[in-house]
Formats: sequence, C-alpha cells, structure tokens
Amino acid sequence: MKKVLITGFEPFLHYTINPTAQIAEDLHGLRIGHYEICGKVLPVQFSKSWEQCLLHIEEEKPDAVLMLGLAAGRYKITPERVAINCADGEKDNEGMVKQDETIHSEGPAAYFSTLPIRTFVNVLQKRGLPAEISNTAGTYLCNYIMYQAIHYFKQSNQNIPAGFIHVPASHELALEIGNVPSFSQQDLTEAVSLMISNMA
Amino acid sequence: MKKVLITGFEPFLHYTINPTAQIAEDLHGLRIGHYEICGKVLPVQFSKSWEQCLLHIEEEKPDAVLMLGLAAGRYKITPERVAINCADGEKDNEGMVKQDETIHSEGPAAYFSTLPIRTFVNVLQKRGLPAEISNTAGTYLCNYIMYQAIHYFKQSNQNIPAGFIHVPASHELALEIGNVPSFSQQDLTEAVSLMISNMA
Amino acid sequence: MKKVLITGFEPFLHYTINPTAQIAEDLHGLRIGHYEICGKVLPVQFSKSWEQCLLHIEEEKPDAVLMLGLAAGRYKITPERVAINCADGEKDNEGMVKQDETIHSEGPAAYFSTLPIRTFVNVLQKRGLPAEISNTAGTYLCNYIMYQAIHYFKQSNQNIPAGFIHVPASHELALEIGNVPSFSQQDLTEAVSLMISNMA
Amino acid sequence: MKKVLITGFEPFLHYTINPTAQIAEDLHGLRIGHYEICGKVLPVQFSKSWEQCLLHIEEEKPDAVLMLGLAAGRYKITPERVAINCADGEKDNEGMVKQDETIHSEGPAAYFSTLPIRTFVNVLQKRGLPAEISNTAGTYLCNYIMYQAIHYFKQSNQNIPAGFIHVPASHELALEIGNVPSFSQQDLTEAVSLMISNMA
Repeated sequence: MKKVLITGFEPFLHYTINPTAQIAEDLHGLRIGHYEICGKVLPVQFSKSWEQCLLHIEEEKPDAVLMLGLAAGRYKITPERVAINCADGEKDNEGMVKQDETIHSEGPAAYFSTLPIRTFVNVLQKRGLPAEISNTAGTYLCNYIMYQAIHYFKQSNQNIPAGFIHVPASHELALEIGNVPSFSQQDLTEAVSLMISNMA
Repeated sequence: MKKVLITGFEPFLHYTINPTAQIAEDLHGLRIGHYEICGKVLPVQFSKSWEQCLLHIEEEKPDAVLMLGLAAGRYKITPERVAINCADGEKDNEGMVKQDETIHSEGPAAYFSTLPIRTFVNVLQKRGLPAEISNTAGTYLCNYIMYQAIHYFKQSNQNIPAGFIHVPASHELALEIGNVPSFSQQDLTEAVSLMISNMA
Repeated sequence: MKKVLITGFEPFLHYTINPTAQIAEDLHGLRIGHYEICGKVLPVQFSKSWEQCLLHIEEEKPDAVLMLGLAAGRYKITPERVAINCADGEKDNEGMVKQDETIHSEGPAAYFSTLPIRTFVNVLQKRGLPAEISNTAGTYLCNYIMYQAIHYFKQSNQNIPAGFIHVPASHELALEIGNVPSFSQQDLTEAVSLMISNMA
Repeated sequence: MKKVLITGFEPFLHYTINPTAQIAEDLHGLRIGHYEICGKVLPVQFSKSWEQCLLHIEEEKPDAVLMLGLAAGRYKITPERVAINCADGEKDNEGMVKQDETIHSEGPAAYFSTLPIRTFVNVLQKRGLPAEISNTAGTYLCNYIMYQAIHYFKQSNQNIPAGFIHVPASHELALEIGNVPSFSQQDLTEAVSLMISNMA
C-alpha cells in the first residue's frame, strides 16, 4: 500500500480555525484507494512551513504529496495548476512580509502541479461538488510550499506526484470571518477523500 | 399538532433543478418540533404562483407558512425581513415581464415578515450554518408571493405567521449555473428543518 | 428657480473620505436644470443625522431632497426604491447600535421613493453610466434618513419629492478600503448632476 | 525617441466593444514620456492573435511591448506578473477550444513579465487609480500572447521589455454585459498613459 502525505495549515491571523488542519487530522491514519494517509498540520510561517513539510517528507517517505490551503472567498474546490517562483503578500504568523521575492534564485519561473488535477476536477463534479482548476495559488504560503515541494522532488530526481488544492472556507470559519462563501466541513473532507481515491 | 405549509419553486429559466422544490418534497409529511409539514412546489409564474399557494392554504389550513426561494449568488440562509408592494424584473416561466408594478393598488408599501426571523438566524448560526436577515426579497416571484401571503392573512384577519426564506444554490445547481456559491442540498434541508423546530 | 437639497455623509468608521460629502460640496451653489443646489454634509449618527437634515429642510425650504450615501461594494449608481421602518446594523460614528428597531412606531412598514427613479436610471444608462434601481437601502443611516424624510413630508402634507441614491466608492476611497469596486469622483458627481438635470 | 507597441483586442463573443481596442486606437501616434506609441488591435483567435502581433513587432521594431486585455469582473488595473505555458478555456472568436494545452513544447512552465509592474502599480495608486499586481493572466488569449511575446524575445535574444495589463470593463461595456464593475474609458486610457510615462 502506498502512502500519501496530506498537509493542512494551522489557523492564520486572528482566526481560531482552519478547515485544512481539520481535514488533515480527520483523514490521518485512514486508507483510501491505493493510499494510507499521513495527515500533518503546518505553521503559517515562511521560515518554518517548508522546513517542517520537508521533515515530514523525509520521515514518512510518501509516494504522493497533497497539500491543502484555505482560499477564503472561493466557492469551489480548486486544484492548483502552477506554483510560481515568487513570494509576496501579507504578514505571516510571525510578522514576516515578503514583496516580489524569488523563492529559489536558481529555480525556474514556475512548476506545474504533478498531481492529476483535471481528473480531480472531473471526479469532484461528477460527485456533485463544485470544482475547477485554478491558475494561481497566489504568492503567499500556499504557493510557497507548492513551489518548494515540486522543486525539491525535481532537484532530487524523485518522481513523486505533488501539488496543492485550495478549498473554500468551512461554514464554521465563515461564521467567524463574516462574509465569505463556505462548504460544510464534511463536504471539504469528502472532496479530499474523493481526490485521493482517484490517484493511481 | 400544528401544520406548517412549506413552499418551494419549480426550476426556472433553463435550469433543470431548484433546490427549494427538493426541500419541500423531502420534508413533506415529516413532523418537526410542533409541526407536521405539508410541502408544495409552486410554478414560477406571476399568473399562477400565488393563486396556487392560496389553494394550498385554503385546503391545508396551515398554522404557519414558510415559503422558500433560490437566491443564486447568496451564500447564507437569508430569512427575508420585508416584502414590498412592487413587481419588477426578468421574464417569468411563461414570458411575463413586469416593471415597477404595484401588486395591490390598495395595499401598503410593504409588510414585515411575521415569522421569527431573528430567532431563525440565531439558531442557524449556533448550529454552524451561515445565516443573515436579508432586507430585500427582490421584486420578482419571491417577493410577490411573500407580499400576497401576508396581505391575505392581514385582510382576512388571520393571525398566521408567514414569511419567506431565500437559500443559496445547491452544489448540484451550482454545477449547472457555473459560477455561484453553493451549499449541499443536505445543508439546505437541515437549515429549513432547524427553523421549523424553532417555531412556537 | 427651484431649490434642491443634496445631502452627503461625513466619512464613517476609520475612513478619511466619503465621496458623497465631496459631491454635495462640489455641487453646492451650482444651478442645474430647474434647480439651484444646496449641498450639505450630515453626521453618521442616528441621534443627529435626521435632526440636522430636518434643520436644513426647515431653513432652506427645498422643492426636492436628494440624499446620497456610499454603498461600498456596489458598482452602479443605485437610486433606492423604498425605505423601511427599521433600524439595524453596525455601530454608528458615536458607537450607537440598533437591532431590529422600529423608526416610527406609528409609521407604515415602508415608503416608496418619491423621486423619478426609473427616469434617473434610464438617463444615466443613456449617458454611459451603469445604473440600476436598488430594492434595499439597508437598515443603517441611509435607510433611516430616507424613511424619516419621506415620513416628514407625508405627515406635514408637503408634496416634496424626496429619496435616496447610493453610489459606489470613489477611486480614492477604494485605495483606502482595499478591495471594492469604484468610480472616479468625477463620474459620481456627473451622475448626480445628470439626475438633477432630469428632475421636473 | 523610443517606440512602444500597445496592443488591444477586438470585441469577443457577442459583445460589440472592447475597451482595450479603444485605448490602443486613442493612444496611437501620441508621444508619452520617452515613447512614441504604436497602437494595434488584435483578433481574439488562437490561430491569429500572436501571428499578427509578431507581424507588428517585426514591422514596427518596438523598444517595448505593452499588451492589453479585458478582465471583466476585475475592478483594478492589474499588470500581470507571469504568463504560463498553458492554453485552456472558452471558445475563441472562431470557435477554437483548447484544454490544458502546452503553448510551446520546448518552453519553460512560465515567464515573468519584463515590464516594471511594481512601479506601474505604485504610480497608478499614487495618481488615485486602483491597481494591483495580478498573479494570473488566465489561460486564454491574454496569457497566450503574453507567453508568446516574452518567449519570442528570449529566444531571439532581444532585450525588449514586454508584458500584459488586464483592465476592468469600461462603463459602456458594463452596460452591455450587465453585472460587472467598470471604469470610465477615460480612466482606462489615462491608466495606460501613466504606465507608459513611467517606463525608462
């Protein structure tokens, strides 16, 4: 049986929950399709998120890496097509701000996801969950760890599928934030399960 | 045991489903809180929707009337505060268009909902479902039957609580429409059940 | 020559500008169509906004009253169709919060605008400015003074057209707020001028 | 004096105007800052848009290329950060549809804009026009010609700054489309002028 590493993020800014942390925790230890799931929660810090993700990769030696992040404002499950070599945006959880920074000075401008994102979207829609390929993972932590992960596997010549999926707010989080679309936590977790069950 | 009439609408325009029809059908015959539920589906036609709703009222003699409609684009359960004496908007399902028309020439400019809408919102939020009082039911069929129903009960001196609740698209409908926020059908039906269970 | 009272609001919350104050100031003293313009800026306080508006009405004895307010998030000029007998919403500038309060215990549920709102929309669109009748002025200060003004004229049997127009953020304000659609201040002022020039 | 090629697109789908075509035409022949402007309008066809753009480049030998496109729904001037090696999306004007296609099989996953996009955003904001760097030019014609242009200059070792700017709908187009934010055409043209006047 193969192993998939699923990562979520801890809550960021002043919010108390992050639905992706809960998905990672809820799925941890389960077996879905060809995969045993290892779920982990990452810090929202440029200085630590990738470092910690890499530790999990080295320890768990997963056969695939599926990273999750919240995209407050979106109302579909959105597998990301591409990660770009740029860090920019709001303060992270320890106050670090980046503007127009290159992630790897030697790295290419971008990497495409190596997950089967078109299949993911087709499967989710077929099962009644709104989904769409997204063409930007932004330039914040989500894009950052997606770029780092794919870069790492390319550099080390490992043929490990890796990529990032943005999800809408959960209803619980939407009640905190105030004015964003949301799915039930159950829908979010089911969406991730469905994607895993459709990975080779 | 008291009886509540729940109305949904048939699909409109070129869509094939309307989540409010399914809620009405799914809840029909159930007993929730103090109420036995009579669920009915209304046509999307100015010429028939109220006429048919009235027939149901006369036949069923409900103790409360809770009318449901789709608000594609909204991402919260939104009990309506007020219905206004105006019909306007897009073509209905038989091609009728109204512009700035008075619904009842003798009627007041508006009626407030006689359902406990603040309680509804509090209960839904407490149970983790995004909800908010809406201050406009629009000027289309939804506002039309809400105005008609409250007007009818006032005119006939019946103290029957009546009002309108707009709901987001269901995931299924969102997949048809393309770019609107959505809840699962299950969330929508649960929201309506919760409201009924909190009616006196 | 007739006189029209144009009111804007001072900035609210932590913002430094309100485009409606600037419109009122820019148009003050001008003559457009059949009207000489008296422009005034009102406080964002339930306790004072109507009181002060009424003072202006008593002093200036206008032949028409056109009140302006910001609707951050809207991207059209939106003449309001109706004001409802309800005060609710966020804190005002002196920290007062109202929830589900009746404005006038003896007043009707709502008043329709007595301005030629359909003409306004037609004229604006013809001149290339996106415009639409809005069916809700909300339940905050904007609805409050609209309801108060029309109520006052009805009660005192004065046949003075009065109503409310919501406008989008100006570009300047959008730069402060961050993520809202906007028009140039010039477009906003021109829109109000156009409406005045089309009042009988 | 240097020369800048400004491209807009012809109207697409069933719309009758495209504000970027008008900007290109309005600025054609003017001198702004260090540049004489050559404005051209491109077809909305995968088979011809780049081919024609390339002809203009070969004929005009511009010192910089600034390509413009409409992003209906956006409400800021958005210089694009990156073009990706992917063509996907709706039908173009001759009915061609692409899904997940590579633009250049030998090309890198992406190219960053070689225009001073951070300066553009700063200058626009300073002059009171909402602007923001965008991290996705989509996967339709806009991304396509941006990728093609930068690829071409890299391949041919020409150090010519090139990039893409998405603009909101104009008021005129918004009136056709119905429900999208918009700027006046004058604001759009001024925004492009400002960017040119701040190019080295």
